[in-house]
Amino acid sequence: MTFQSTPREDRPRIALAMGDPVGIGPEIVVKALSAPEIYQHCIPVVIGDARVLAEAPGWRNGERRIVEIDDVEVARPEPGIISVIDLANVPDYIRKPEATAENGRAMVEYLDKCIELAMAGKVEAVVFAPLNKLAMKKAGFNYPDEYEYFASIFDTTDYTVIQVSPHLVLASVTLHVSIREVPDMITKERIISTLRHSVRAARAAGIANPRIGVAALNPHAGEDGTLGKEEQAIIRPAVELARAEGIDAHGPFPADSFFTTVKSAAYDVYVGMYHDQGRIAIKLLDFGRASTMTEGLPVLFVTVAHGTAYDIAGKGIARHQNLVETLQIAARRALARRDERA
Amino acid sequence: MTFQSTPREDRPRIALAMGDPVGIGPEIVVKALSAPEIYQHCIPVVIGDARVLAEAPGWRNGERRIVEIDDVEVARPEPGIISVIDLANVPDYIRKPEATAENGRAMVEYLDKCIELAMAGKVEAVVFAPLNKLAMKKAGFNYPDEYEYFASIFDTTDYTVIQVSPHLVLASVTLHVSIREVPDMITKERIISTLRHSVRAARAAGIANPRIGVAALNPHAGEDGTLGKEEQAIIRPAVELARAEGIDAHGPFPADSFFTTVKSAAYDVYVGMYHDQGRIAIKLLDFGRASTMTEGLPVLFVTVAHGTAYDIAGKGIARHQNLVETLQIAARRALARRDERA
Repeated sequence: MTFQSTPREDRPRIALAMGDPVGIGPEIVVKALSAPEIYQHCIPVVIGDARVLAEAPGWRNGERRIVEIDDVEVARPEPGIISVIDLANVPDYIRKPEATAENGRAMVEYLDKCIELAMAGKVEAVVFAPLNKLAMKKAGFNYPDEYEYFASIFDTTDYTVIQVSPHLVLASVTLHVSIREVPDMITKERIISTLRHSVRAARAAGIANPRIGVAALNPHAGEDGTLGKEEQAIIRPAVELARAEGIDAHGPFPADSFFTTVKSAAYDVYVGMYHDQGRIAIKLLDFGRASTMTEGLPVLFVTVAHGTAYDIAGKGIARHQNLVETLQIAARRALARRDERA
Repeated sequence: MTFQSTPREDRPRIALAMGDPVGIGPEIVVKALSAPEIYQHCIPVVIGDARVLAEAPGWRNGERRIVEIDDVEVARPEPGIISVIDLANVPDYIRKPEATAENGRAMVEYLDKCIELAMAGKVEAVVFAPLNKLAMKKAGFNYPDEYEYFASIFDTTDYTVIQVSPHLVLASVTLHVSIREVPDMITKERIISTLRHSVRAARAAGIANPRIGVAALNPHAGEDGTLGKEEQAIIRPAVELARAEGIDAHGPFPADSFFTTVKSAAYDVYVGMYHDQGRIAIKLLDFGRASTMTEGLPVLFVTVAHGTAYDIAGKGIARHQNLVETLQIAARRALARRDERA
């Protein structure tokens, strides 16, 4: 299954949030936008701080031209020109790679501006560079993750976070919650919703009837109920309900052997019950090459797998390939959303 | 870190339980014992059913000679001769690969005989071929796994199950319990005990001061307490207490990135908090090549990573390499136990 985009004229406009101004975000943004192929798939508009971008290391393509714009519609898909809506919110004294309330506030402002543009129909996807949650918390951001923030804006809890990597499409029933809270969050409703979102994501990648595998919660899939009841009481019935809807769902399977079947591409989408279950697998298989997207929210959000990497920020050695892949995945998914709405 | 054994004169005698008589156990036992190198590392004595072994497919080394013995001391380390203590407990009508009370009872009898021999000092390790837990349960065996059965015999709960594979030595703080039960089982005592057992296992493999990494329980290692308190309240203090004892322990680390460090061999032993956490990693890295051993019990138990494989039982196509590696690991660990006792 591939989320690779193909070049086309009616490419979507994408808002690209610069992320943490003192992390590697500005660097990978300018590096990614120096790759000419990006502009064949989308029209990127950076939401960030123009001065920080101008100073970021890593520009690869001759002269750097950063063009400040007010209206995303004037952004041009021209390699070599980075169109920026400049929030000018990074004062001079914020330059050290440190989690502060100031840079936390800046990165939330980029996200908010992106959401505003998306809700006004001016962009078809929001891609964001890495965030620093500690900085955001210092700025008063009180959500377990950015996805719950997005969901709260749209007043819903019915969405799924899906990771896409070269070998694996991974949907998670629960995400940023403690292990102690996980079992009570495994409900039939949540599982079925995750499966529906998985189908939609797979269809966007060109698979009409995706085969979806579901991991168990407990070791040995509960071993007939002796190692946990959730498989019998919740997960298996949910898979059966989904099948009755026409979803080609299978499982629940013991998680340890389940994820080895990625190597033979047994399923188009892998569904995990909790954060580390699937992420242990995806990091071992495709470290640094996953993109994370939301499915089920009115706005499409897509981000990279890695963090702000303060240890290498400003050194010009950050790798931008994951952001290039993420922009392409966002472009592909955004086009499919057009068809879903038509 | 390697648990590979080297040939030596004073090699340990090992009791090898045949496992499920209708699974692939008999076949991999005769195949493994047709490998001459095994006898350089240990003197294996099979505890099983001689007739089932005689009929097992897969003998590779000319004429099969199965010698029934009563006393393990007459077993000879001679390639081509399989010494068997024949419990003759598999009647003719038990031949189909099915989980029945009869074969369940037979495999428990093999284990019990092995334990008797080990407690009498007649063998220095117990290796067992795959068991079928459903069959054992039908025979009245009421333990979540065989390790808890062994521990109950020795009236203790203070032991650790450790998996050894080519890339990874993995100790687990909890094992065959539901995810719901895991958080309350993560105690300082259990973690410290697991760390002590990890050190002993690593020393047996020739590493005097092993570097031990510890996985977190919660996603992002609890993210400063917002995604779970166990890291701050229990795991980190336990790691610090272990360090105060001189154990080179590190962590807790977010589990998803932690297990990617196996690729650079960052730690000699990896400690996981629950079953699937480590097993997702070890199966992705070394599928079918792990051996599982107990650390901390009066008897050393070691077994293979795979199951009874009813689907291929009797067909002569089962692979015995994992059992060969397991016998060598048992031999190596058994020799170190001599030194520990001296």
